[in-house]
Amino acid sequence: MNFLTKINGARRHNQSCLCVGLDPEPGKLPPGVGVYDFCRAIIGATYNLVCAYKPNIAFFEALGSEGWSVLKQVIESVPKNIPVILDAKRGDIGNTAKAYARAAFDELGVDAITVNPYMGYDSIEPFIEYRDKGVFVLCRTSNPGAADFQSLVFEGKPLFQIVADKVETWNKNGNLGLVVGATQPEELKAIRQAHPSLPLLIPGVGAQGGSLELAVKYSHTGDGLAVINVSRQVIYASSGADFAAAARNAVLSLRDEINRFIPE
Amino acid sequence: MNFLTKINGARRHNQSCLCVGLDPEPGKLPPGVGVYDFCRAIIGATYNLVCAYKPNIAFFEALGSEGWSVLKQVIESVPKNIPVILDAKRGDIGNTAKAYARAAFDELGVDAITVNPYMGYDSIEPFIEYRDKGVFVLCRTSNPGAADFQSLVFEGKPLFQIVADKVETWNKNGNLGLVVGATQPEELKAIRQAHPSLPLLIPGVGAQGGSLELAVKYSHTGDGLAVINVSRQVIYASSGADFAAAARNAVLSLRDEINRFIPE
Repeated sequence: MNFLTKINGARRHNQSCLCVGLDPEPGKLPPGVGVYDFCRAIIGATYNLVCAYKPNIAFFEALGSEGWSVLKQVIESVPKNIPVILDAKRGDIGNTAKAYARAAFDELGVDAITVNPYMGYDSIEPFIEYRDKGVFVLCRTSNPGAADFQSLVFEGKPLFQIVADKVETWNKNGNLGLVVGATQPEELKAIRQAHPSLPLLIPGVGAQGGSLELAVKYSHTGDGLAVINVSRQVIYASSGADFAAAARNAVLSLRDEINRFIPE
Repeated sequence: MNFLTKINGARRHNQSCLCVGLDPEPGKLPPGVGVYDFCRAIIGATYNLVCAYKPNIAFFEALGSEGWSVLKQVIESVPKNIPVILDAKRGDIGNTAKAYARAAFDELGVDAITVNPYMGYDSIEPFIEYRDKGVFVLCRTSNPGAADFQSLVFEGKPLFQIVADKVETWNKNGNLGLVVGATQPEELKAIRQAHPSLPLLIPGVGAQGGSLELAVKYSHTGDGLAVINVSRQVIYASSGADFAAAARNAVLSLRDEINRFIPE
């Protein structure tokens, strides 16, 4: 099924614009709980309150040779109506990007992926060619270092806006979106105003400190999908045996808070 | 052992500035030869003629759950005096970048990695903190799309030069370098002139069409390491059972050609 159809279905069904990021750091898991069991329990406790899950492949790679199969099992444990966005931030020359796309879409079977724009169009095209898959291009990221290059101004426009404009022109298959952090709400606002119909994936609320209210208000002014991602604030809501129930409570209040902030 | 010490040792020992890229695409391997056996045979036939190997993790990820252990075995099969540069082009926020660094340096045990600068300093710092490891930051890449963003001019300087300048200021541990493609020799020349001491990793000769002569001449004008990478031209020199011998012949002539072009 097409990614946008699937995520919009989950969004309506669960009345939720919340994506839960699965970033399992071994040192942070409750005692005696392995990575697969941890993720599986979080998913089991929250699947009817979210519009997507976003596993970050870095935390699975850090497990070594078991990481890939653990990740694949986690992905397979997500109910079929909830899309999985692989946070991988890939980007390489054409023949290599093709291999990354095969890995994500054919081998892991995810519904969408995040990619890095630094290498330009041919590094993203192989992902776009999977018409039923979503491709979120890094635009204005949520971290402190984002300003190093993304905010440089070229002929009156910051780099992140040039990236957003390019993504709009590359969107021949209608499956592109942008990653825009919540930590710089005015920049999020400007991007949404310039690109009312592009799907936005918005990390940076919660542990990274972005305002949830502004993230929701500014991203929901167009007709494009806006997905708010929260990772640590949900999955580490409790460090004890009640982590799954605590995650559910965190998701429940985040979802409802988001819904209250959505403009009429 | 420190990456620069190791690669300089291999360079002197083998009289070679050539790095062989290991990009095993299943459709291109000789009939009946698996990915591990293919890479192992290439390494066995060329290890005394190169200064490094550069496996690209995308081609191993595309194998699915076996990919990681095949990659690890390939890395372990490289003789201990030859460094391995993992071509991964990673980049993410701090806590995620830490996980990528653990995956590459602790789990796979490589000597160096390629990273993407788009997300700025904190996305690269966790790699830099491994003082004995090399970190090559994408600067001016070899692909057609590189011009989309890397060549945008900001206050008289293209983005790729701004990246190079930043990398120089971030180089507190002396373990940073740049990836600069051979396909735009004048840009390579300008980067080397501005940064005579930074190690350069130079893809783009061979299948991508960059001039070997200019790549060598322009990168060897400073006192910094310059490593020429060739992948497809070497590993697919023959599609038959003689692929390893053909790879050795290709490496032998590339190495000698490079050595002839190095300025006095």
